Amino acid sequence: MSETLPPFLAACRRLPVPHTPIWIMRQAGRYLPEYRALREKHDFLTLMRTPELAAEVTLQPIRRFALDAAILFADIMTPLDGLDLGLRFAPGPVIERPLRTAAAVEAFAAHRGAGGVESVDQAIRLVRERLPREVPLICFAGAPFTLFCYLVEGRASKHFPTARAFLYAEPAASALLLDVLADIAIAYLEAQARAGAQALMLFDSWAGLLARDEYARVCLPPMRKVLAAVGHLGLPRIYFPLDGAPLLADAATLPVEVLGVDWRTPLSRAREIVGPTLALQGNLDPMALFADDAELDRRIDRVLEEAGSGPAHIFNLGHGIEATTDPDKVARLVDRVHRATAVPTFAQSTV
Amino acid sequence: MSETLPPFLAACRRLPVPHTPIWIMRQAGRYLPEYRALREKHDFLTLMRTPELAAEVTLQPIRRFALDAAILFADIMTPLDGLDLGLRFAPGPVIERPLRTAAAVEAFAAHRGAGGVESVDQAIRLVRERLPREVPLICFAGAPFTLFCYLVEGRASKHFPTARAFLYAEPAASALLLDVLADIAIAYLEAQARAGAQALMLFDSWAGLLARDEYARVCLPPMRKVLAAVGHLGLPRIYFPLDGAPLLADAATLPVEVLGVDWRTPLSRAREIVGPTLALQGNLDPMALFADDAELDRRIDRVLEEAGSGPAHIFNLGHGIEATTDPDKVARLVDRVHRATAVPTFAQSTV
Repeated sequence: MSETLPPFLAACRRLPVPHTPIWIMRQAGRYLPEYRALREKHDFLTLMRTPELAAEVTLQPIRRFALDAAILFADIMTPLDGLDLGLRFAPGPVIERPLRTAAAVEAFAAHRGAGGVESVDQAIRLVRERLPREVPLICFAGAPFTLFCYLVEGRASKHFPTARAFLYAEPAASALLLDVLADIAIAYLEAQARAGAQALMLFDSWAGLLARDEYARVCLPPMRKVLAAVGHLGLPRIYFPLDGAPLLADAATLPVEVLGVDWRTPLSRAREIVGPTLALQGNLDPMALFADDAELDRRIDRVLEEAGSGPAHIFNLGHGIEATTDPDKVARLVDRVHRATAVPTFAQSTV
Repeated sequence: MSETLPPFLAACRRLPVPHTPIWIMRQAGRYLPEYRALREKHDFLTLMRTPELAAEVTLQPIRRFALDAAILFADIMTPLDGLDLGLRFAPGPVIERPLRTAAAVEAFAAHRGAGGVESVDQAIRLVRERLPREVPLICFAGAPFTLFCYLVEGRASKHFPTARAFLYAEPAASALLLDVLADIAIAYLEAQARAGAQALMLFDSWAGLLARDEYARVCLPPMRKVLAAVGHLGLPRIYFPLDGAPLLADAATLPVEVLGVDWRTPLSRAREIVGPTLALQGNLDPMALFADDAELDRRIDRVLEEAGSGPAHIFNLGHGIEATTDPDKVARLVDRVHRATAVPTFAQSTV
């Protein structure tokens, strides 16, 4: 059966694969000249909100590289787009009207629908029509705690002091907001699934700001709610807690098929922590793409070695690709992962 | 003998103390109205560079709270002040002329003295004249890798992509620069010791960006060089790797007396990792100062509980105090730590 699944979806299910599948976080983005050409004509929000443009950007890296998955061009904040928060990008997300009082949270809680649904619905349909069958489409959202950080702080910050102080100063309002954000994520991910998403990923970009007990208290309950609620959709669920080394054991208790691992935790160590029941996704340091070819090759091989020989590995960078990366290095990476992991018995059409 | 040492210095040496000593990272700073009043008249660089003003700012929190140590008002970047890099603060450090080529690094390597020495020398002498004997003065510098991050990136950044790419793209120049920065730190710390510093602290604010093997390869050698070189001064050495949970075991191999632990790693866990031979400093979440009094008290007590009953604990926050903190919360914190840990046999003068 697994031969008929695209390699990426097979790996998510820990089924045998013809080669280790690879995709790259932020593969649709600024390191591609064809993306920069589009960005000269349209701002980021326009690209994200216009289905034809979002579809085009999503497909750009697929045309150029033999990637095993596409990921919808959108932002972790897209579920908050259109919810009257004054979301803009400069270039990181900015919330013009952050929620900093219990009253503001209660007013926001009156909303219960997700934003950004209409444009992603159409973009997903366009992408699915144009994608080859063996390249599944990943859709994603920000995890509730990460959206909470931006919503309270108002913009990216080294340590999100306002958002973290709010957790202590307003515990009840914080819990309410996290629960509302879970509902928003659920509505958004369900809409993506209806439109044709083939895997769902949650980015928890700021999980690493929390001590382990705070993570268990603050981050996990809304995350568990989201993942449980979308389970009936039958799509692989991927959770990526950035800077999550001390959190992996707890993260592994979530109902997910795949755990993303950042560049700081060797996959062999992650595997020891999370056990055999999940697929792991990662984790070449994105900066290794700036090394010379020989060093890059050694780094790629080390990630493969640390991942072990089982099927439950999806190759990726350990964080989003840097905008100044040479696309030729990406081509080298994809080719090397495929060649190094090709299983002869699967490659019947090429022998 | 230890009764004659101030509690902070005794704790650094793991000697018995009359109470757990406490000081607070960034205790001389914006959360104090008297600091903000001075800052209205002088910019940050002027405060830092003018010995009389730096001394005054250093002493402000000592007048207000029963803190067990003072820390010189300066910046982790002060050792680079005056080295023709265009250092300014906006408000974080900015390097107008970052080092981004091997040639730029080689030119910079021709310098071998530290910057900022003259002003800190005078400030230290003024502070020591005015400090009570039981309140020792900590002086500090940025760790070589952290200075490297700013020098190459040019300013603070979420993940310092330029600096981290430089490590891969220019390994030889990177090693040279880290070694030069070690020499700069040594010259700077030695000057501080000559002027009257009673403890030396190295802040490694960006160590957490590195995977453990990169940390061992990149961060530790220059750090070891600095700590070994200043060992002959006989002052306690404190090393604080921020976001360092996965790095503590390696950090504990450094020649230090005290290891700082950020708010994300319980001190009990840190103690398991590093063993009994070092004092630990930390680690109340600075954001806990925004909780109500009852919750704040619980958090303080939990840190004390995790630290255990041994003498080898210096209470601190797990990161710098936030500018919007209520000073009354700091007073409560200092008082509670002192009361909770007071050893009756030491308190002869008060019974």
